[in-house]
Amino acid sequence: MAIKTVVFDAYGTLYDIQSVASVTDQAFPGHGDMITQIWRMKQLEYTWLRSLMRRYEDFQVVTRQSLIYTLRILGLRYEDALLEKIMDKYVHLDLYPDALPALTHLQGRKLAILSNGAPAMLTALVRNTGLDRLLDKTISVDGQKTFKPSPEAYSLIESELGTVPSEVLFVSSNPWDAIGAKAAGLNVAWIERVTPEVMAAACESSSLVAPLTMFKALRMQMDELGPAPDHRIQGLCDLAGLLPPIASA
Amino acid sequence: MAIKTVVFDAYGTLYDIQSVASVTDQAFPGHGDMITQIWRMKQLEYTWLRSLMRRYEDFQVVTRQSLIYTLRILGLRYEDALLEKIMDKYVHLDLYPDALPALTHLQGRKLAILSNGAPAMLTALVRNTGLDRLLDKTISVDGQKTFKPSPEAYSLIESELGTVPSEVLFVSSNPWDAIGAKAAGLNVAWIERVTPEVMAAACESSSLVAPLTMFKALRMQMDELGPAPDHRIQGLCDLAGLLPPIASA
Repeated sequence: MAIKTVVFDAYGTLYDIQSVASVTDQAFPGHGDMITQIWRMKQLEYTWLRSLMRRYEDFQVVTRQSLIYTLRILGLRYEDALLEKIMDKYVHLDLYPDALPALTHLQGRKLAILSNGAPAMLTALVRNTGLDRLLDKTISVDGQKTFKPSPEAYSLIESELGTVPSEVLFVSSNPWDAIGAKAAGLNVAWIERVTPEVMAAACESSSLVAPLTMFKALRMQMDELGPAPDHRIQGLCDLAGLLPPIASA
Repeated sequence: MAIKTVVFDAYGTLYDIQSVASVTDQAFPGHGDMITQIWRMKQLEYTWLRSLMRRYEDFQVVTRQSLIYTLRILGLRYEDALLEKIMDKYVHLDLYPDALPALTHLQGRKLAILSNGAPAMLTALVRNTGLDRLLDKTISVDGQKTFKPSPEAYSLIESELGTVPSEVLFVSSNPWDAIGAKAAGLNVAWIERVTPEVMAAACESSSLVAPLTMFKALRMQMDELGPAPDHRIQGLCDLAGLLPPIASA
């Protein structure tokens, strides 16, 4: 394949969503893991449900509402300032350690993000983490007022970058996102961050589990849902094996 | 309001989805709760994701694929016959104890089910549990080739029963379903099977949790997602308070 453009998912792929746990656990000691997992799971549920109901609100709204849900059902009380402090982590998420090396290696190709994130959230996050110097464009699904995996969301890659789907490699660690991108006609690399062996071992005694284990079981294993991604890789640095540097290509 | 028609969600509302645990635990001792919860959570995820991707397959397919996913990620091996035995529970789900008394009380009004279930699954389930004698109609979203909470799914109530939304009370214990129905213009009663107090108490020490607790935290508490249901009830028998018997009306 002649890949001219590499487009990355942001949350969970370049950025470690689990890094919010430092803030949630500081705010509510002992509850950090539970808050982190329920928050993330509801956040995505809300994007799917709002898209289906045709009641789009942007990812800033959805992220806040899912956090409010989480704190409420856990019976945790808070002031608005604390809520905003937790929310603020979303524009200061940790990059995965292999993100900068991988993006640096791929220089010469057109590089972009396609994310559920609202434009202002994404702009701040990319700037705060220095990715603005490595990316050609950051695309928000907000341009279509729907969330991934709607085909309309992925269509923004062609309309915003001018690259046809067959020349794009889309990279995501989110199984539903990888499948959605494949269903929309893109070439897709899925990052398998939790191997089946590790997953099964974590669930061996499953009468009580860590919330993070439930998250991994629900959202980090390849789904039985449709077209399989073209590539299954273990981390962002494996992209080097799929895409040789432009200079030597 | 002049409610002429009461339409029920099936899975989780009239039928106890948790009753599959008897079969899953017999098939895989010690894993019943984990299988039950992941299966159900993925099953609904798949309905939402397939609807969004416009890759509809019916609920029989989705239910089987989500079960296959669950057994695979837990590293559990099985023969096809065992898979079919577990699947068969879906046409023999337990009714909630208050389902028959509530439906009996409401006789005289038009009563129906609107469910994600595939037509053959629903027909068998309703017959096996005797609800065919109490219901005027069982409607499957398959008529629209999309799942709830798509507005098109709820539109089947009017097209199949000939009742306008303002004269319908839709009853569901699934928060996303109650909100979706409300967004589609129906009157809605949400059954709160797990009170906030019980929920918060179950999560008080949340470093390790039962899979069922995670399910309750993720799927049995009212969402922060849009229009609130008109009524919040504790069980099906509370419908009697909302809808007096036709004879005395």
